[in-house]
Amino acid sequence: MSYRPEFTSTPVKLTYDVNAVNESTQVSTIAIPAERPLTVYVDNRELVTLMTLGAAPEALTLGYLRNQRLVQAIEEIISIHVDWDKHAVSVTTRGGIANIEARTAKRVVTTGCGQGTMFGGLMDEVDTIILSPDARLKQSTLYKIVNKIRTQDSVYAKAGSVHGCGLFSADGELLYFIEDVGRHNAVDAIAGIMWLENINGADKVFYTTGRLTSEMVIKGAQMGMPFLISRSGTTQMGHFVAEKVNMTLLARCTGKHFLLISGKERMVYEPELLDIPLNVA
Amino acid sequence: MSYRPEFTSTPVKLTYDVNAVNESTQVSTIAIPAERPLTVYVDNRELVTLMTLGAAPEALTLGYLRNQRLVQAIEEIISIHVDWDKHAVSVTTRGGIANIEARTAKRVVTTGCGQGTMFGGLMDEVDTIILSPDARLKQSTLYKIVNKIRTQDSVYAKAGSVHGCGLFSADGELLYFIEDVGRHNAVDAIAGIMWLENINGADKVFYTTGRLTSEMVIKGAQMGMPFLISRSGTTQMGHFVAEKVNMTLLARCTGKHFLLISGKERMVYEPELLDIPLNVA
Repeated sequence: MSYRPEFTSTPVKLTYDVNAVNESTQVSTIAIPAERPLTVYVDNRELVTLMTLGAAPEALTLGYLRNQRLVQAIEEIISIHVDWDKHAVSVTTRGGIANIEARTAKRVVTTGCGQGTMFGGLMDEVDTIILSPDARLKQSTLYKIVNKIRTQDSVYAKAGSVHGCGLFSADGELLYFIEDVGRHNAVDAIAGIMWLENINGADKVFYTTGRLTSEMVIKGAQMGMPFLISRSGTTQMGHFVAEKVNMTLLARCTGKHFLLISGKERMVYEPELLDIPLNVA
Repeated sequence: MSYRPEFTSTPVKLTYDVNAVNESTQVSTIAIPAERPLTVYVDNRELVTLMTLGAAPEALTLGYLRNQRLVQAIEEIISIHVDWDKHAVSVTTRGGIANIEARTAKRVVTTGCGQGTMFGGLMDEVDTIILSPDARLKQSTLYKIVNKIRTQDSVYAKAGSVHGCGLFSADGELLYFIEDVGRHNAVDAIAGIMWLENINGADKVFYTTGRLTSEMVIKGAQMGMPFLISRSGTTQMGHFVAEKVNMTLLARCTGKHFLLISGKERMVYEPELLDIPLNVA
């Protein structure tokens, strides 16, 4: 049993009902996802505010600290306490975060969906990552994963307007599924769970509903994931980083369709699958 | 003729071709959007790095400074020079940005797709905004706008994986259309153009392909827009802020379908339109 910081468990409402009027002036009640600020305090110092769905605030906080490289070892963290009344999460560390001023000052230059110059620092780390060439993904496993995400009970299915991330085993079993309003939050929360549960990404498959932009690929690489799958597309820099770390990118995955963009040697094609109907759960 | 800072004009390649392999092992060349870092220097001080498509870096920089409330008057800006070789944009101001350290230190607590605690500061400003109740939008104008976006020549049509924003006149004429990898960048670039051209948002209609989250609604309100239209959905806080500033939110706009979420009194229904086929350009 690996070390675990003390966590709160703080279930909150994830969808809200509002009245909408459609093109025929018909009024209906629709569900929309929650969106709430969560301000992270580390040893009583305000660090950042994340806009989040609120499904996994403790894992999100842990993964955020990890992916920002503010905490090196999980043993440094004593507790993560969420207080939704204050829209705050308090992180207590053993020894504080060294040079937190200098290291969060760098955060001045991160912004928006691109998470700006995290890039600068992160690319240095990415230069050191080469993902294992040995992992393989069968076409049938990819279809199993895509179908599992499609049929997953989710906030997206109820309300739309959120991104989801799934961590899968090499044979396509869903291990964890997390949704959030920002695709980065969903990835950070998965990273938090992997850190907490001491899960190695090398034999896992990572699915995101979001686009495969540079920072999504970088975070996947940091988590040691050889496979990154999306129903959406990729960008020039997402492709560039994936080639650099030898990650297998699979874009536009819907039904039986997909586009293998990089790390092509890891894909195991099963042509006979195209002749049989999709297994629809 | 209003004051204009000196701008560079720096066209760059917006899509790149890569080889992809599909489910039938067929190799094809697909286009993917560019994604490049652009580091903003204000009077030689590094401020932020934006990950951008690169379609409108000067307008993006101007709009970013405006939406971050770092510059109050456009006359304060002498020039905006982009140098893609250095992935840098140099902003020269007349008197410098007052207390830039203190004001960008606050930026420490912004992050990710939610742009975190810009929220805190911005909500104070939002409390002062009430959008004009007089503006009206005809159902036929909405359909004209949705169809214009659908048929617009775009990076999205070629390569996908970008967000687009359109600024429309009250009668549905497209004034400006900007795409970027991050939906915030596209909005900021439109804000930059509006500031540069001294355009009042009060009689305009704003379209975004992105979700109507809190900060999208906040930026629309800052730009004085009574109408915010999307093919996508909204969130609890997007809805909350829209109600607060009395903004008309139209979500899920595709073909003839839409969902009127808030500011309902501004919508002018034309039921007869439902009986005739869509005008497809």
